[in-house]
Amino acid sequence: MAVNVKPLPHLHPAHGIRLGTAAASIKKPGRRDLVVMEIDAGASCAAVFTQNAFCAAPVTIARKHLAQTAPRYLLINTGNANAGTGAQGLHDAATCCSALAQLAHCKNDEVLPFSTGVIGEPLPVEKIVHGLPGAYAALSDAGWEDAAHGIMTTDTVPKGVSRKIDIEGSTVTITGIAKGSGMIRPDMATMLAFIATDAGVAQDVLQQCLKDAAGVSFNRITVDGDTSTNDACVLIATGKSALARIDHVAHPAYRPLCDAITQVCSELAQLIVRDGEGATKFITVRVNGGASEQECNAVAYAIAHSPLVKTAFFASDPNWGRILAAVGRAGIAGLDLARITLHLDDVCIVHDGGRAPDYAEKRGQDIMRKSEITIHVDLARGSHASTIWTCDFSYDYVRINAEYRT
Amino acid sequence: MAVNVKPLPHLHPAHGIRLGTAAASIKKPGRRDLVVMEIDAGASCAAVFTQNAFCAAPVTIARKHLAQTAPRYLLINTGNANAGTGAQGLHDAATCCSALAQLAHCKNDEVLPFSTGVIGEPLPVEKIVHGLPGAYAALSDAGWEDAAHGIMTTDTVPKGVSRKIDIEGSTVTITGIAKGSGMIRPDMATMLAFIATDAGVAQDVLQQCLKDAAGVSFNRITVDGDTSTNDACVLIATGKSALARIDHVAHPAYRPLCDAITQVCSELAQLIVRDGEGATKFITVRVNGGASEQECNAVAYAIAHSPLVKTAFFASDPNWGRILAAVGRAGIAGLDLARITLHLDDVCIVHDGGRAPDYAEKRGQDIMRKSEITIHVDLARGSHASTIWTCDFSYDYVRINAEYRT
Repeated sequence: MAVNVKPLPHLHPAHGIRLGTAAASIKKPGRRDLVVMEIDAGASCAAVFTQNAFCAAPVTIARKHLAQTAPRYLLINTGNANAGTGAQGLHDAATCCSALAQLAHCKNDEVLPFSTGVIGEPLPVEKIVHGLPGAYAALSDAGWEDAAHGIMTTDTVPKGVSRKIDIEGSTVTITGIAKGSGMIRPDMATMLAFIATDAGVAQDVLQQCLKDAAGVSFNRITVDGDTSTNDACVLIATGKSALARIDHVAHPAYRPLCDAITQVCSELAQLIVRDGEGATKFITVRVNGGASEQECNAVAYAIAHSPLVKTAFFASDPNWGRILAAVGRAGIAGLDLARITLHLDDVCIVHDGGRAPDYAEKRGQDIMRKSEITIHVDLARGSHASTIWTCDFSYDYVRINAEYRT
Repeated sequence: MAVNVKPLPHLHPAHGIRLGTAAASIKKPGRRDLVVMEIDAGASCAAVFTQNAFCAAPVTIARKHLAQTAPRYLLINTGNANAGTGAQGLHDAATCCSALAQLAHCKNDEVLPFSTGVIGEPLPVEKIVHGLPGAYAALSDAGWEDAAHGIMTTDTVPKGVSRKIDIEGSTVTITGIAKGSGMIRPDMATMLAFIATDAGVAQDVLQQCLKDAAGVSFNRITVDGDTSTNDACVLIATGKSALARIDHVAHPAYRPLCDAITQVCSELAQLIVRDGEGATKFITVRVNGGASEQECNAVAYAIAHSPLVKTAFFASDPNWGRILAAVGRAGIAGLDLARITLHLDDVCIVHDGGRAPDYAEKRGQDIMRKSEITIHVDLARGSHASTIWTCDFSYDYVRINAEYRT
């Protein structure tokens, strides 16, 4: 059901990164559900995590390990989120890290754990430990595609983006994979995304780049308004390319590299929305003319979270009154309705607080039948703007989430 | 599909109030869609309206008329919300008021207009004006039941509550009707509710009573988180009972009367949730132990608005991890997860941030199969509490809202 998603492109190896995937029967047998990512010594690693107060045990452990040392391995499992699992969950995540550390002859805190899947059930530690040697043996710099499959849960398509760009005469590779389909309203990062470049970047500079990139990509999407307990996005810079190491943000290579990374993040984030649970439409919500970016976001999310707007898009019904009602409840003080303009793609629907004089239902319906639609609201009270991406709300969303644990 | 709703009870006439209903073919022929409510001279009238910035034309007119004089007539139509209709909408609402004023020999501003239905389409003024004589001729103090039908839109059952209580030796009647099923997240009042008592109450005292009553009833429900452009709740006190007029809130009759009115509002509000679009479960969300009522509300609404929680309830799946995830994203600073307790009815599911030691899936499933369920979250950080009511999220919600305009 994913909306206009092309097959997974070739994912260029990022020198200094190897990935191995295995099927460990964590939730169901015969499904790739365990991924190990090996990072060469000397790489920098940045990460952003969920802001959900109920963050999962692996998020707590990954944050702690990352503060202690540079990671050498990422250990990712699907089928179980290890969230809402209390002290046992922390213990279980640590046990898995230590099992991989023994296998790979590294320290426990050089392993970062990531989990995604059902919340509230104990992590099947034995299955994971049992599956690790297979994933470890499979490590390869061509392992990105398998890993893109290995991190999927309710995703219907694997998600990956890869770029080779030229910066100052050196070829730099950026390759990333992501998973996510429901419980998508990232508040710092998305569900899970792992991005690597062979450029060399100091850790603090890399963290700044990731924060900025996530801010306009993973933090600008919503499927259902529910923020996951397990969101994490990791960006690794191995320093294996010929490009000189980027030690500060004023370095001439910083901007082109960070722009390219932002582009990769943005494409991955949009892939998550295109594969949103039950999605049949990909919707861009653009709000401009706001007095602040914050109020533009508030209006955009009020529209994007409205079940009434989302079901109207599913039905291809240009019921624009629901969009107006969502704008009106976004809590913007002193909003002047008479100045607001609403477009669907290039068709002006609302002007001066009422239906545009030349609007005809037929024109709205022609737009609504498309699989990609832009809602554009001009608040006409300032110079700020915001763009977010979302999808519609279908029978299949209800089916997928009603049947999720069966 | 309404959840455990009994047939409409007998609605006692409130002395001084007459209602007439007609079928004016506003959206579909043969359907009662026009209601006139006649109020005896000398009555007090209080009202609360939607806080949606895009309020409908009739809301603007009703507010204005109410500020000018005491109303003698309410004019209510379904099938068209007269919202998002700009200057023409204001003109249309005023035209309808003046048509009724002519018929009833009163002033234009003694008529308050109310509309509910599709947003963004011009009000069919001619149909309404044409239907008015029929509704006017039908005026009767026994007209409540017809009116309860006449204000329905996607409601599957008429909603009314009626009480006779004894206050200081006098019998006082309170009767109310309401409509609402979708676009329900009132932010001051519900979709539409009209309540009358034959007690005599000064206007400012009545307004205070309604504000307080709505605050713990209509403002504590949500079906889909979407606040209507047309919400209004009107409370009339005719002063026809033998009870002495209540001129201030310290009057001994004020508390028992206001408590009874609050009870009527609360039952009407819960009826709206029970008849929520596609609802199969009636869910009470109770949050206590909060540092403020506001944070209890934030947690309660985060749970009640989560599509993932709502679809799990539809599926009778005790997927409590989704409830925890919703609590975690409610934006409560410094929330100590290790102290939170979660119950479904009387079954303790979460304790110390993880699954309660004696919890077994079977016990959760037994609760989830019921049609009425209480989610109880104890934040264990203060003495404030809040209760709201909501429903689950089913295929039928999507169907109803995808097909709404077809």
